[in-house]
Amino acid sequence: MTGRLSAKPLVLVILTFLAAGTVVATPAPASVDGVLKLMPVPASVTVRDGRFRVDENLAIFPANAGDPKGAVSSRAFRAAARFMSRLAGRTGLFLKQDFLSDPKPAGEVGIFYRFDKTGALLPNEDESYTLSIDRAKIALRATTDIGVLRGLETLLQLLSADETGSYFPCVDIADRPRFTWRGLLIDAGRHFQPVDVVKRNLDGMAAVKMNVFHWHLTEDQGFRVESKVFPKLHQLGSDGMFYTQAQIRDVIDYAAERGIRVMPEFDIPGHSTSWFAAYPEFSSAPGTYGIERKYGVFGQAFNPADGRIYPFFDAFLKEMSALFPDPYLHIGGDEVEGHQWEANPAIQAFMKKNGLADNGALQAYFNKRLLKILTKYGKKMVGWDEVFQPGLPNDIVIHSWRGPKALVEAAQNGYQAILSNGYYIDLCLPAEAHYLNDPLPPDSPLDDRQKALVLGGEATMWSEIVTPETIDSRIWPRTAAIAERLWSPASVANVDDMYRRLGPVSVRLEELGLLHLKNPDMLLRRLAGDPRIEPLQVLAETVEPLKNYLRHGQAAYTSLSPFTRFVDACAPESLAARSFRKKVDQFLAGRDPILGREIGATLARWKANHVRVLPIVAASPALREIEPLSLGLARACEVGLEALDLLIKEQNQTAAWAEEKGKILADAAKPAAHAELAVVSAVTKFVAACAGPVK
Amino acid sequence: MTGRLSAKPLVLVILTFLAAGTVVATPAPASVDGVLKLMPVPASVTVRDGRFRVDENLAIFPANAGDPKGAVSSRAFRAAARFMSRLAGRTGLFLKQDFLSDPKPAGEVGIFYRFDKTGALLPNEDESYTLSIDRAKIALRATTDIGVLRGLETLLQLLSADETGSYFPCVDIADRPRFTWRGLLIDAGRHFQPVDVVKRNLDGMAAVKMNVFHWHLTEDQGFRVESKVFPKLHQLGSDGMFYTQAQIRDVIDYAAERGIRVMPEFDIPGHSTSWFAAYPEFSSAPGTYGIERKYGVFGQAFNPADGRIYPFFDAFLKEMSALFPDPYLHIGGDEVEGHQWEANPAIQAFMKKNGLADNGALQAYFNKRLLKILTKYGKKMVGWDEVFQPGLPNDIVIHSWRGPKALVEAAQNGYQAILSNGYYIDLCLPAEAHYLNDPLPPDSPLDDRQKALVLGGEATMWSEIVTPETIDSRIWPRTAAIAERLWSPASVANVDDMYRRLGPVSVRLEELGLLHLKNPDMLLRRLAGDPRIEPLQVLAETVEPLKNYLRHGQAAYTSLSPFTRFVDACAPESLAARSFRKKVDQFLAGRDPILGREIGATLARWKANHVRVLPIVAASPALREIEPLSLGLARACEVGLEALDLLIKEQNQTAAWAEEKGKILADAAKPAAHAELAVVSAVTKFVAACAGPVK
Repeated sequence: MTGRLSAKPLVLVILTFLAAGTVVATPAPASVDGVLKLMPVPASVTVRDGRFRVDENLAIFPANAGDPKGAVSSRAFRAAARFMSRLAGRTGLFLKQDFLSDPKPAGEVGIFYRFDKTGALLPNEDESYTLSIDRAKIALRATTDIGVLRGLETLLQLLSADETGSYFPCVDIADRPRFTWRGLLIDAGRHFQPVDVVKRNLDGMAAVKMNVFHWHLTEDQGFRVESKVFPKLHQLGSDGMFYTQAQIRDVIDYAAERGIRVMPEFDIPGHSTSWFAAYPEFSSAPGTYGIERKYGVFGQAFNPADGRIYPFFDAFLKEMSALFPDPYLHIGGDEVEGHQWEANPAIQAFMKKNGLADNGALQAYFNKRLLKILTKYGKKMVGWDEVFQPGLPNDIVIHSWRGPKALVEAAQNGYQAILSNGYYIDLCLPAEAHYLNDPLPPDSPLDDRQKALVLGGEATMWSEIVTPETIDSRIWPRTAAIAERLWSPASVANVDDMYRRLGPVSVRLEELGLLHLKNPDMLLRRLAGDPRIEPLQVLAETVEPLKNYLRHGQAAYTSLSPFTRFVDACAPESLAARSFRKKVDQFLAGRDPILGREIGATLARWKANHVRVLPIVAASPALREIEPLSLGLARACEVGLEALDLLIKEQNQTAAWAEEKGKILADAAKPAAHAELAVVSAVTKFVAACAGPVK
Repeated sequence: MTGRLSAKPLVLVILTFLAAGTVVATPAPASVDGVLKLMPVPASVTVRDGRFRVDENLAIFPANAGDPKGAVSSRAFRAAARFMSRLAGRTGLFLKQDFLSDPKPAGEVGIFYRFDKTGALLPNEDESYTLSIDRAKIALRATTDIGVLRGLETLLQLLSADETGSYFPCVDIADRPRFTWRGLLIDAGRHFQPVDVVKRNLDGMAAVKMNVFHWHLTEDQGFRVESKVFPKLHQLGSDGMFYTQAQIRDVIDYAAERGIRVMPEFDIPGHSTSWFAAYPEFSSAPGTYGIERKYGVFGQAFNPADGRIYPFFDAFLKEMSALFPDPYLHIGGDEVEGHQWEANPAIQAFMKKNGLADNGALQAYFNKRLLKILTKYGKKMVGWDEVFQPGLPNDIVIHSWRGPKALVEAAQNGYQAILSNGYYIDLCLPAEAHYLNDPLPPDSPLDDRQKALVLGGEATMWSEIVTPETIDSRIWPRTAAIAERLWSPASVANVDDMYRRLGPVSVRLEELGLLHLKNPDMLLRRLAGDPRIEPLQVLAETVEPLKNYLRHGQAAYTSLSPFTRFVDACAPESLAARSFRKKVDQFLAGRDPILGREIGATLARWKANHVRVLPIVAASPALREIEPLSLGLARACEVGLEALDLLIKEQNQTAAWAEEKGKILADAAKPAAHAELAVVSAVTKFVAACAGPVK
């Protein structure tokens, strides 16, 4: 699980972080010629003198005959062709090599990749690679072609420019993942996410070396996979929004091309209302069911006491086991409330008869029967925390979402485990919150054998309030920070350095078709009905959606609600707002007047924005809700400017003054339009600094 | 062909243009509450007093039982659901109706649609509709469900807002297309365009009531359709970039849902190099062929004298005829140079033996044999101008690309005809050039019977220098102007009014997933490697790509070249530049000082942009080529500011002064980076006005 690259001593890990961090760097951090912007940071990086110049003669060649299929038909060659296309896109170079069909080496100059065997899409497969860049030659070596794929992404991240043109810096990199399970869950149940959404996010995953796509395919709000055995499932459970089996095979192929496994999830016995649209008789309270539009935890669950459901699941899981080649299959198992079970006398009698003491025992019974079916079809069972019940054998995988304790308990009890608690990107928390969430923190109580059971983690993109238009901005760039946590050495944990790289990585992710930077502007244009949206953009950079599911308290969201409001155009984490808060902290620490002027200019710009927002709001009913945010920003910035001026003049103020300003700021900090200003806290620090001596 | 809505007198056509134009309008043109922004303009519009208020209670209902399948499973109902989703997206309203599954009328308030029968996807099908909006009820009536689809697009374009909220203005509209064939050709041969590109453009077509998707599937540079009969064709001819038959069926379904026919084109006997990658023996000069990377007209052509090709085409066209349900099939036939034919003694002998005097006669022979095959499989043959040769029967359709004369000749000779000459959107010409290109201009020499043979036209998106990233901005919004030419009455021809509506329509097209407004920014971010691109955006709004294929003279483009440069981020027509030129004309006509100040501010902003562009250019090798454009803009604007100042002061200058300034402007007007400044001509007018009295 910790990779097979034993030749590299651990000391290099430290070197790494320096190299990719701020130490081995030119003095000007804004320069394109500056420090490396690798994400995830490799296990070891040594920067040497020299530059490999990139011009139209650049070519890439397979250097091994270890590929049984021949170069052009190999996964590595196709990845190399995509690499060249992306490189051409960034540099504008008319590359002479016909990189789609011509792998023949023309000389000694170029990129040479080599691998020993085709990698398997399985946990613990070797993804390591070494990358050695000299002035005339780039050598990329790996045990498997998957390692080549990972190395190509690193190489592309190394592309730099100086006054002469584009180049790769001369480096030696030896890299391997820390965890073997680096996943992204996409919930296609609550909001259907068409194939193109999935594909572009697979490309994003590959760019940051993630390797498990967890496809959440069924929910109360939708059954999203075509079943040829039980076609009523998708016909009645999806509003026509489901993946055909041909599409699923296409996605699996697409993922495999990028070295990514596809693990399906069929969430049972709860979260299953959409199944009952087709088969109400399998519910624990038979009746009429439609596709659920609302969100929450509903009582509906399959009836484990009904013998008919097991042949049904046998046939269904047989079909799905054949459709999805991955050896793991996720059966969900979360949030079964049990009200229907408790209200059903037949179920109660069944429990009594079988000695099942409580709902947990009933669910364990259900899971054991499912496990038998899955085992028959060659699948390993994965389930959320709740499947961890006494009596289940050790060969299931626990997917921990409720807390780190559950992960530890699972490992201590001999279960393999995956962590998602702390990686819930739908909470709209800042990247650093996820970044510092280590599946195996330094204080982990696990011993080495238990640690080896912790396979890795998954970012979870639940889609209650996320549509194909907004999902990319909810996943990226923050998920790149999670990818780094799961790939890079544990010592790579400098938050500021992570943010230094996150912005550039975000721009690079765009070339894969991801819409995270594009669609916010599009949403604003739609709301304004006009291409001129600059004042809205200015406001949006200071605003973030309400966090921790607080947004759900603001309106009765359903799967048919519009997710096209201003809040949906605001990034979960504004990097501009973070940068502003950071500058305020720096100013308060050192009172640098140049920094003070810069902050003052930003405050003045934000303050002046309100009068520019007003006419746009007046013309758009859907934008009226943002007026309090815009006004709050103007007022907070007015306070900020006053405080800044006083700080520069070193004029302390009274507590009464601070209280008065504090009221204005508290008002500005109030949620509006399901969002909140992300810069008020910094202004509050200014006011506090005015009211008394700063520590 | 001119529709079946005979009840409406022609006089309403005139009323229409006034209503959608600038006469029946509130005085403030910038107001959302102002004039209608319908595109294409309906055949007749009568605006009445009153507003239908749009709130969360808005609901839509089928009002007829004329749908044999039942409402929920009908095309119209699904279109209504999409309509509601788009309306919710624009308004941010949490609509109470479950518009995906609940068509039951709840009362008398709402949108009621009604049609008599399911429309066929055939030329001359009835697409007419009437739309009557009262304060409490909206009635949409049509003969076919396709008419309902068209009417829903009109209704959505009517959505307006005032201080109370969103509303539909009370209107009566009776609408029908002028031409029955309103197409868009997408060339997936030269650059493959994946399914999602096709689908979002189908949505764009539906939004402006276009109804024929012409899918150019084979080219020298790629064979893009899976053939199960001859799999080598796509295996060896596409670099793996082809549509599977399942994908093609999916696209056809998707198009049919939107009332759009899908006509495939297999371009033969020329433009066929990619076929010969698989079957070199069918070429007129057998040898080894690879997929062509370069662009141009190549000598390669099928060998009409080789009897083996006809069974081959029989089997291939049988397969394709079954795959594509449309009764029309396009066989290309353009640009067969004939060098291979002339150099092949066997072909020369064959021509002699069969009395085929020249290459045209040989191609006609080929076409006649193909026609027999197509007829056998129930298809009507469509071909480019060149297929119009003596001896071909009248039941083929001539697709005119070389000039209006060819269209006229075809109709005069009794052939049905489609016009694309004048609709070549890859030429990067302004929308007005296409808008004023009428298939049947007032001075048409055709009589009524011949006019009826002119079915309509097609915009052609050839893809030599167009990729999935840039194609949308090359198609939209200009194609909306062509859609209006083909749908609206001939009298709708006010260029300024078209432009008034084109900008808002462009913003609305974004909601369909089109990337025409998003991707230019993305390309600039990629080139800059940074999200801060405002100076590049400012420059881009003053620049347009070289027109009329002049760009091809600037570099040896191939299908593998990067189309990610600054020029690719520039719209074919900058609406901002057009607006500037328009203002300059207005100022020179009236010398309005307020307008003068506005122009001066724009010139000053553009002039000041250069110093902001320079650091971005310095950091990006791929952007260095734009420095002359940026400098040229600054210099031209400096001249413009000087001239404006002189004009305001009414100080005429000497011819020598004008000559000196003219040199600067001529220099600024020079192409650079495959592009040119689109605002220099306006400054030149300023200088000319200074040098002598203005008329």
